[in-house]
Amino acid sequence: MAMERLDILGTLSEEAGRLTRPYASESMRRANEHVAGWMRTAGMAVRQDNVGNLRGRFEGSHAGGLTLLLGSHLDSVRDAGRYDGPLGVIVALAAVQRLHDGARRLPFAVELLAFADEEGLRFGSTYLGSAAVTGTFDGADLDRVDSDGISMRAAMRRFGGDPDRLGDDRWTAARPLGYLEVHIEQGPVLEAHGVPAGIVSAIAGQNRYVLTFTGEAGHAGTVPMDRRRDALVAASEFVLAVESEAQKTPGLVATVGQLAVQPGATNVVPGEVTMSLDVRHASDSERVEAARRLLEGAADLARRRNIRLDTRQLSENATVPCSPNLVATLSRAVRELGHPVVELASGAGHDAVAMSALTDVAMLFVRCKDGVSHNPAESVAIADVGVAIDVLGRCLELLATA
Amino acid sequence: MAMERLDILGTLSEEAGRLTRPYASESMRRANEHVAGWMRTAGMAVRQDNVGNLRGRFEGSHAGGLTLLLGSHLDSVRDAGRYDGPLGVIVALAAVQRLHDGARRLPFAVELLAFADEEGLRFGSTYLGSAAVTGTFDGADLDRVDSDGISMRAAMRRFGGDPDRLGDDRWTAARPLGYLEVHIEQGPVLEAHGVPAGIVSAIAGQNRYVLTFTGEAGHAGTVPMDRRRDALVAASEFVLAVESEAQKTPGLVATVGQLAVQPGATNVVPGEVTMSLDVRHASDSERVEAARRLLEGAADLARRRNIRLDTRQLSENATVPCSPNLVATLSRAVRELGHPVVELASGAGHDAVAMSALTDVAMLFVRCKDGVSHNPAESVAIADVGVAIDVLGRCLELLATA
Repeated sequence: MAMERLDILGTLSEEAGRLTRPYASESMRRANEHVAGWMRTAGMAVRQDNVGNLRGRFEGSHAGGLTLLLGSHLDSVRDAGRYDGPLGVIVALAAVQRLHDGARRLPFAVELLAFADEEGLRFGSTYLGSAAVTGTFDGADLDRVDSDGISMRAAMRRFGGDPDRLGDDRWTAARPLGYLEVHIEQGPVLEAHGVPAGIVSAIAGQNRYVLTFTGEAGHAGTVPMDRRRDALVAASEFVLAVESEAQKTPGLVATVGQLAVQPGATNVVPGEVTMSLDVRHASDSERVEAARRLLEGAADLARRRNIRLDTRQLSENATVPCSPNLVATLSRAVRELGHPVVELASGAGHDAVAMSALTDVAMLFVRCKDGVSHNPAESVAIADVGVAIDVLGRCLELLATA
Repeated sequence: MAMERLDILGTLSEEAGRLTRPYASESMRRANEHVAGWMRTAGMAVRQDNVGNLRGRFEGSHAGGLTLLLGSHLDSVRDAGRYDGPLGVIVALAAVQRLHDGARRLPFAVELLAFADEEGLRFGSTYLGSAAVTGTFDGADLDRVDSDGISMRAAMRRFGGDPDRLGDDRWTAARPLGYLEVHIEQGPVLEAHGVPAGIVSAIAGQNRYVLTFTGEAGHAGTVPMDRRRDALVAASEFVLAVESEAQKTPGLVATVGQLAVQPGATNVVPGEVTMSLDVRHASDSERVEAARRLLEGAADLARRRNIRLDTRQLSENATVPCSPNLVATLSRAVRELGHPVVELASGAGHDAVAMSALTDVAMLFVRCKDGVSHNPAESVAIADVGVAIDVLGRCLELLATA
């Protein structure tokens, strides 16, 4: 049933023939309708909050008890796969459904948060849904406009929320027991280990930069090689330095994903190159140190080539460690179900990053085919989804008896 | 006076605040009007041909004699300098004006060709003007459309020409004595030598390619370095190989001027890079051999990195040698006027390339400031323009007495 539900959600899109489900869109409304129905079937009380998160609450055995949060997001990137986000919601739904089917109550309530925006596709700002829950939502974001000129404020209102009452979305009850998120791995590690699921030890911190190399544009036919100040050659040297630094630093991933050349004509020596740099490591000190070495190297090579370098830091996020208690419980559940325990760092960011401001977090990764994600070829095995449901269900039982 | 004329032409533009004078535009019409007037003042009979070239003819001392062609172009690139093209027309005008002022007739006619299109800005096809004169105009080009959807055929008609009678523009009289073109150098060589003008030995041949490196896009946070097939890293290695090959091969210039990354997101490992390669050398065999080595190197590094490489050749133009006789005459003129003789290859293409299909060609380069061209900062010294007029005038006298 979980796979069928994921297939249904996979058809809810703003674009014909491919899955694109942005924040507060028509397709998101339909996704929320489906999920709300499934939540009710699982015995949950359902409400949509102001930002647009769908919240399903499965009460515990006694009133006034604590709450364990489960969750993931229902929005997608453009031309997405169907598992990134929805898998976590559907696996959690299945685990709660089993409790409901067995007329079982836990000593704590379970609240399933189906977040309205994690990817940031529509407004370019990520974690909108979880930020509203943790109270870290930046009110200035309400003035952002999408590519059609619609403000976030208007989109939110149209979606049924009140942008002036976002404070109401904030979790103000007693500190939750924790936040558990199931997600596809989006990488090749579990597949390489031959295991259906793995336990996230930490969500890697990340530094993002924009670098601009400015040389001098010139005629490709008339400026001799020894007179050139070619910005692209300098930028290329840096791209290779980034690869080399990351290859020799265990656990480091560093990527130049964007690169634009000015003026960008066949017969003109490049005068300016603007590029992105993304540096991640599960260890904050390793990440900070690697970023420092990379930028220093960029400055050195720019100086040597008589190229001007401007560096701007876009963001710096510290590593979010997962809760040792929750990791131990997840590990025990995996082991009891007969699977090897594999721990791995998450290189991607997740709602758990935002949720860590509110409570302890932990994540279960599900093996994905060929490490492919953010792509319609994204694929998980039915059996692995079954394992994830079993592990999460077992984890709930273990937490209930702890 | 030459500088004032260049300043006037520099104001005739399709864009406010910068010089952009495309083929068959309103600003080109006004440029032709000005130049036609100056041609008449210099005693020339003037006509505009079908493609839009302005042709001024200064008859020789006897009817039925041969003709020496002078010329350059009046169109410009976008946001151009005011000397690339017009300088050659204005210098030639000044040289003819002197003959006229002295009531001097040469034993040959002088025909000044002010070409309507060399840069190809409007229709993306270069040398339209000179190709019409040499009979190498490609009729299929008439169906090209500009960015406003206007066909070249319609533009030509609106400009006063008959696209169905382009054959009439072809030079069918006796083979001319030769074609002489004055042009700014667009490079730093003459400035480095400290000379006002130099003689072009050859116009370098040129190979152009598009290379596509295809790897595999992936999540920048989750794909470990040893699992990546990053198209940009491979492309960067090639950019550095191009620089290195050109640096160690005397006379070779090789340039990657365009480079586009797909999907081009900060957090995505590049899956595909498309780039241009431009290879030039005054020696055909050196050029061909260097291009072969570069493409072989690209294939090797792509193979080593498990990246697919597709290479497409866009064009191959052989080197156009300048006429030894005309070069010797220009050199003698330079020497007689007390300047050192500096010969250099032209890395840029010029109307002389197209004109070489019709007759012997030679070019005189005028020193330009900092080697800057295709840029509003393009600059030549008044004194150097005077030298160019003197050299061309002296060259006409030498040819008259040869």
